[in-house]
Amino acid sequence: MTLPVQHRYSEELSQCYGCGANNPVGLHIETHWDGTQGLARFTPRPEHIALPGFVYGGLLASLVDCHGVATAAASASPADGAVARYVTASLHVDFLRPTPLGPELTLRAWVKERRGRKIVVAVEIAALGEVRACGEVVAAPMPATMGVEAPAAQPES
Amino acid sequence: MTLPVQHRYSEELSQCYGCGANNPVGLHIETHWDGTQGLARFTPRPEHIALPGFVYGGLLASLVDCHGVATAAASASPADGAVARYVTASLHVDFLRPTPLGPELTLRAWVKERRGRKIVVAVEIAALGEVRACGEVVAAPMPATMGVEAPAAQPES
Repeated sequence: MTLPVQHRYSEELSQCYGCGANNPVGLHIETHWDGTQGLARFTPRPEHIALPGFVYGGLLASLVDCHGVATAAASASPADGAVARYVTASLHVDFLRPTPLGPELTLRAWVKERRGRKIVVAVEIAALGEVRACGEVVAAPMPATMGVEAPAAQPES
Repeated sequence: MTLPVQHRYSEELSQCYGCGANNPVGLHIETHWDGTQGLARFTPRPEHIALPGFVYGGLLASLVDCHGVATAAASASPADGAVARYVTASLHVDFLRPTPLGPELTLRAWVKERRGRKIVVAVEIAALGEVRACGEVVAAPMPATMGVEAPAAQPES
């Protein structure tokens, strides 16, 4: 098993609620990059409910976000070592059918397009062997001014 | 102050992680419908961090989702009493500039378009008087089969 992309972020940039290894109460989403696509598994907690029996869509959006941005970052970094940090410029999710609460979710993400320095990543979320939601993230390199001046995009996963 | 839209959902459909009054550890997003638009305030918790100093985008997506869907539901319901439950068909967020972690966020949402039974809602999130993110939710009436058969959209806020 490869080291998760999120464990190759620098320590001071690993606090993200969605995927930061250093966030004590976060979701700890972990993306594995196989050289072509990003893969992840995540089991929602019982409180991640929408309506009885189904997963909360805001959680699914969070998975799309962090997994998509990590896939973008891994695709733009050397195979080993540190991974360049990306941020989210935009996020889209289509909820194709309800996602059952309980089973493990599997995520797949791949680079769809490059627009200058921005990377467009497609994400699919499946449960019980069926795709439940698909999404798209536009990721941008973290501005060097982050923390000093306002960057052009949201600091994200 | 009006009763929040989410407090007018039926008890058994009030467990949503984002906005359910009956979710003990959820975000408890509360939408106030003034007859024209949905208004909300939310202060992220310290753990809702992306990078140091900034709010996690997945949380902002959750706010857009629950606040947008509640606005759709309120717009389609009588002024008082129970509110019809809607679910999310799709969700989009543009992160215009970073959202500082600490200050209260203010949300505004309004119906942009009706497409048959679906309602398209626009949402803006501001902090320190400046819009930080804008989004759009396509909401659909909760299928009567929810919990029995799979509906066509994600059960959401």
